[in-house]
Amino acid sequence: MAVYTRLGAEEMASIVDSFDVGTLVSAKGIAEGVSNSNWLIETQDTGGTLRRFILTIYESRTEVADLPFFLGLLDHLAARACPVPRTMHDRSGATHRLHNGKALALIEYLPGISVSEPTPGQARAVGAALAQIHLAAVDFPATRANSLAPADWAQLLRDCGQDGLATIHSELGPLVERELALVAERWPDDLPRGVIHADLFPDNVLMLGERVTGLIDFYFACTDLLAYDVAVTHSAWCFGGDGVRFHAELSAALLDGYESVRPLSPEERSALPLLARGAALRFLSTRAYDWLNTPADALVTPKDPMAFARRLEFYADPANAWVFAA
Amino acid sequence: MAVYTRLGAEEMASIVDSFDVGTLVSAKGIAEGVSNSNWLIETQDTGGTLRRFILTIYESRTEVADLPFFLGLLDHLAARACPVPRTMHDRSGATHRLHNGKALALIEYLPGISVSEPTPGQARAVGAALAQIHLAAVDFPATRANSLAPADWAQLLRDCGQDGLATIHSELGPLVERELALVAERWPDDLPRGVIHADLFPDNVLMLGERVTGLIDFYFACTDLLAYDVAVTHSAWCFGGDGVRFHAELSAALLDGYESVRPLSPEERSALPLLARGAALRFLSTRAYDWLNTPADALVTPKDPMAFARRLEFYADPANAWVFAA
Repeated sequence: MAVYTRLGAEEMASIVDSFDVGTLVSAKGIAEGVSNSNWLIETQDTGGTLRRFILTIYESRTEVADLPFFLGLLDHLAARACPVPRTMHDRSGATHRLHNGKALALIEYLPGISVSEPTPGQARAVGAALAQIHLAAVDFPATRANSLAPADWAQLLRDCGQDGLATIHSELGPLVERELALVAERWPDDLPRGVIHADLFPDNVLMLGERVTGLIDFYFACTDLLAYDVAVTHSAWCFGGDGVRFHAELSAALLDGYESVRPLSPEERSALPLLARGAALRFLSTRAYDWLNTPADALVTPKDPMAFARRLEFYADPANAWVFAA
Repeated sequence: MAVYTRLGAEEMASIVDSFDVGTLVSAKGIAEGVSNSNWLIETQDTGGTLRRFILTIYESRTEVADLPFFLGLLDHLAARACPVPRTMHDRSGATHRLHNGKALALIEYLPGISVSEPTPGQARAVGAALAQIHLAAVDFPATRANSLAPADWAQLLRDCGQDGLATIHSELGPLVERELALVAERWPDDLPRGVIHADLFPDNVLMLGERVTGLIDFYFACTDLLAYDVAVTHSAWCFGGDGVRFHAELSAALLDGYESVRPLSPEERSALPLLARGAALRFLSTRAYDWLNTPADALVTPKDPMAFARRLEFYADPANAWVFAA
């Protein structure tokens, strides 16, 4: 939660004027996003109509090279009636601009709130929305490699060191070693691939009741196994109490919702237990790394890696194989 | 800039439901306010009308005792057509509620942006709006002592210590000593008193072009000399480059705007140079204290006290006496 870039009102008005969206009437820095600065802005056109947008300034260089993929994807999905925000194009038709050396984009504001205690109806709707973007992106022409693939988790966890992992929890090192070896040996490469969101936590879904009004924050989107995205979303939605409590009814509803739009093949279905262990490892790896490497004076509080170690143990337990059974 | 309290969506919806303002459709934590948590929220009523509010959770105990004053004042001023946000009352008629031991209030959202490089037309409008609240609050029944009066500046600066002040700037100690003595000796007590905002920086004024759409953040409001509020606002609006550059045209416009609504008496006018030195000391005292006492890992970056030391020197220089001449 942070706004890293300071923008004067006059500067903000001039940025907004480079898009053909009316005159700036309000701008509030919003406490969302870990690595970017975001403002909720409001404009008024000559007819008096008020419109709202999210203005994002990208603080990290690495993301900028991928902006054509991320922003082009939003346009592609929005044009196919998926619940994602559209990217506003500037007066020259560009999806993003440079301002003082940083890239910025103006993105449609969508109503909705991020649930923290989802109901089965909400999990079902999220599953269906995930399948919807998987299908709608089939003809999206660009690709982007997953920068957090199994080899990257292994590297991040090696960088933590056995000592580092032990400071988080005494049993974390052996767990990680066993699971990384398993994933390296058995990770599938013959399942259907396409564009995946790769980070569809409740924070990244806007809802009104049981309706998904917006899937947001596509900054991890990439080309990878579609069923892995199902596993990521499952690990993000089906556990309460920081990974301690598995919610069977959310799990069933999420998978059912997904299959109501895109049925999983038998091969995808049988790969889900392994993909879910991978998903848990993926979040465990970045959280453990951040936990050990975030300076004490950072604006962002690191998230507890153990929440995903517990999910990993859950998915690895043969007694829980029924969760993904067809 | 911070959101200190984490609120789940369901919790937020339940809070909003305790006010009769429709159903929650959006909530974004906003990166404003130094000591409180704020969200920009949107609701929809049964007729489909969208309404927006600022939800504030008060993190500091001291402010809670003063909420009836602060929130009652907003209602009083809004009822007299001053550009201030109204306080929403809950279903039981209360201006604020307790939630998990913290007070919260729901306040009207107002359009407008905070200028960072004001024009004379904008300074004039702010002067007029300040005079407008001074007049409209004449019959406001409550009072609140100024918790940052001259004796408090002296205490804060004593707490900094001569050594502390010297680490900020080698000449700060002697300057402060001389000015505190002068203020203690000559501070007036026979000028018109009333409710003052006491912190009317550009950040606390929302504008659309040259129109003031909102005076906000009344959490320093108190009962004190009206002309002191003019001096505070003067010190906050008429200097660029962190206190180095005085803008004579902003100064003239601000005073002219104020007097277009409430003419200053000859006694107030002649007290302004001293009151302005006091205003500069007031902000110097809190900034110097925060500069020396903010932990390195704090979420809030302390503001440079020297910006107000330079203003203090400007106001103390007899060569600048013309600034406040009638």
